[in-house]
Amino acid sequence: MSVITLTTDFGTGSPYVAAMKGVILAINPAVTLVDLTHDVPAQDIRQGALVLDQVAERFPEDTVHVAVVDPGVGTDRAIVYARIGRQQYVAPDNGLLSRLASRIAPSMLIRLTNPEYWLAEVSRTFHGRDIMAPVAAHLSLGIDPDRLGLPHRALAELDWPEVRQAGGRIDGTVIEVDSFGNLITNITAEMIGSRPTDERACVVCNIYDTWGIYRTYAEQLRGTLVAVIGSGGRLELAVVGDNAARRLGIQVGTPVVVSWE
Amino acid sequence: MSVITLTTDFGTGSPYVAAMKGVILAINPAVTLVDLTHDVPAQDIRQGALVLDQVAERFPEDTVHVAVVDPGVGTDRAIVYARIGRQQYVAPDNGLLSRLASRIAPSMLIRLTNPEYWLAEVSRTFHGRDIMAPVAAHLSLGIDPDRLGLPHRALAELDWPEVRQAGGRIDGTVIEVDSFGNLITNITAEMIGSRPTDERACVVCNIYDTWGIYRTYAEQLRGTLVAVIGSGGRLELAVVGDNAARRLGIQVGTPVVVSWE
Amino acid sequence: MSVITLTTDFGTGSPYVAAMKGVILAINPAVTLVDLTHDVPAQDIRQGALVLDQVAERFPEDTVHVAVVDPGVGTDRAIVYARIGRQQYVAPDNGLLSRLASRIAPSMLIRLTNPEYWLAEVSRTFHGRDIMAPVAAHLSLGIDPDRLGLPHRALAELDWPEVRQAGGRIDGTVIEVDSFGNLITNITAEMIGSRPTDERACVVCNIYDTWGIYRTYAEQLRGTLVAVIGSGGRLELAVVGDNAARRLGIQVGTPVVVSWE
Repeated sequence: MSVITLTTDFGTGSPYVAAMKGVILAINPAVTLVDLTHDVPAQDIRQGALVLDQVAERFPEDTVHVAVVDPGVGTDRAIVYARIGRQQYVAPDNGLLSRLASRIAPSMLIRLTNPEYWLAEVSRTFHGRDIMAPVAAHLSLGIDPDRLGLPHRALAELDWPEVRQAGGRIDGTVIEVDSFGNLITNITAEMIGSRPTDERACVVCNIYDTWGIYRTYAEQLRGTLVAVIGSGGRLELAVVGDNAARRLGIQVGTPVVVSWE
Repeated sequence: MSVITLTTDFGTGSPYVAAMKGVILAINPAVTLVDLTHDVPAQDIRQGALVLDQVAERFPEDTVHVAVVDPGVGTDRAIVYARIGRQQYVAPDNGLLSRLASRIAPSMLIRLTNPEYWLAEVSRTFHGRDIMAPVAAHLSLGIDPDRLGLPHRALAELDWPEVRQAGGRIDGTVIEVDSFGNLITNITAEMIGSRPTDERACVVCNIYDTWGIYRTYAEQLRGTLVAVIGSGGRLELAVVGDNAARRLGIQVGTPVVVSWE
Repeated sequence: MSVITLTTDFGTGSPYVAAMKGVILAINPAVTLVDLTHDVPAQDIRQGALVLDQVAERFPEDTVHVAVVDPGVGTDRAIVYARIGRQQYVAPDNGLLSRLASRIAPSMLIRLTNPEYWLAEVSRTFHGRDIMAPVAAHLSLGIDPDRLGLPHRALAELDWPEVRQAGGRIDGTVIEVDSFGNLITNITAEMIGSRPTDERACVVCNIYDTWGIYRTYAEQLRGTLVAVIGSGGRLELAVVGDNAARRLGIQVGTPVVVSWE
């Protein structure tokens, strides 16, 4: 009853995803396949890293998460196996796993070098299908990850916008827009800590501001801009009953400031 | 071999859907997961109710259908377990199940109040992941629904556009637009009954009209507006080989009249 | 551990897809369901045929591939069972299987005429749900395909743009645009053969040209037009780090010429 998840930037409905599933099922027809998402924006490693960081640990122990956001396919970038916490990952070493690894140190890192577990013919442009999918299928059958290749020293890292806390305010950034248009920041509930969340808290994003940090969207009137601690434990800005990103014209990268009166 | 289906307004490819699947598989790794749809328009309870009504009963007996179109998340709206016919449902009690329940009286209604079957930490903004997904997983393992909470008196209802039949005509409404752009009405084959479906039947929608009610789209020329009894047993308007909604500029809510010469 | 794949033009998220899955699981709850794609453009039999041709053979032996791109539903077009190579197919006989069958002669062709394996009620507009889905489910349970109907003489064919090779040049066509916007042609690696792929090779598409045929997208600078032998063994044109179709305004059907200096 092993599980493999797939995260790609191929787009939902892409036959490339189906090709990976075919390869996996041909090796392990009993595996359960789950789409994490295929709608990572093309070549946007950061968004791929965020999705993995948010969702992967919900899955059963030993799940194999395959992530293919791989603009460097065909170059000498490594493809790695990583054990991070209770989960397993197969991905290009381009930062995709860096957000997870910044929270939980990987307990095992292998560079995939052993072609015994790859397809017989490996293209130069689709290692997701030809290397990562078959490796994941073999892992789901229980092979020892040591057989996949040689130890890999460390994962590549990405620069992330930092949160600054000084002078009684928190300076963060919108790092994600969800499918409802909610603006998700890198400011966590822990950073806000025990400071007041009532109307003394002021949240500013671009030219917009709102007072109070709420626990649910439904507490205010439709059309109101509201700050919420979202289901991922991070500060979000939402317009009740509407799409905040579209309504306010705000994108990933916009600064967000929380201050207190 | 139990089955859980998911219906949400999260959007296909949303990591929120994947989080629900992770939670479910962590409790029951042997379950079969099926996406009913994640493309219900945001917070459109009516469209969610229509999808469940059309599709759920196709599934094997005892399938657990989880539906999360939940603008009231975090308020005191109930979340319910319902047994309706041979299927099981877990959903907020906001009307999502009302269309099904208007055809088949629920044989069991439980308000989810027992946190023993929820995640240990329940957010205020994502009960789909924290309450409904784990409850569905436990149901798929065969727990007695009585253990989920207390009896719930009755399901919330929604107002639906009514069909009026008088003076030899039927007045209905477009209640859904499918992915081909076909305009699906609330007028059923039963309402038309044994009245003629040849050219004596006239169907009017907005400024457009067509004569005859056909059994298949392919009987007429490309570009023709045609009235058909669709696969759901309801009157549909289609433009052969084209997208009727886009071509005619017609949306959900538009009146449709059938009359006879 | 049998597998059924679904390929349709219903659109990802369509409840029609879910209805097919419900019908299949109600007959064989142990089957593994995989979406090949549901994003074939509406009624575009050619794109459906291309997807099946590219992906189906990756799947385990005896997988049942159901393909529903069916503008002629309700007319007298046949629905067929085909065994092609090690895979099984169920589809309307309108050319959907013609690209596969042009490479590998079908070893068995049956016209579906035995309603014993269909739903009890068959609509006129949705044979995917009422005939093809239940037939596929029964096949996945191991029934003898001979029981599905009578032998079918030959599959319908489609006209495909031809590749001409003369005078030291190859004249082909863009036959597909993938989700990255890469322009995939009908010119194969075999056609190019041992001719030079360095800068002596010139590839022209519309008003654009590029020299050299590469093995990976990442060898050149962002924004460069590059010709690559793609993962399907065919010549592709890509703009590094961008969407070539959108950037260059090129669609399926555009001529592509390879010549040598």
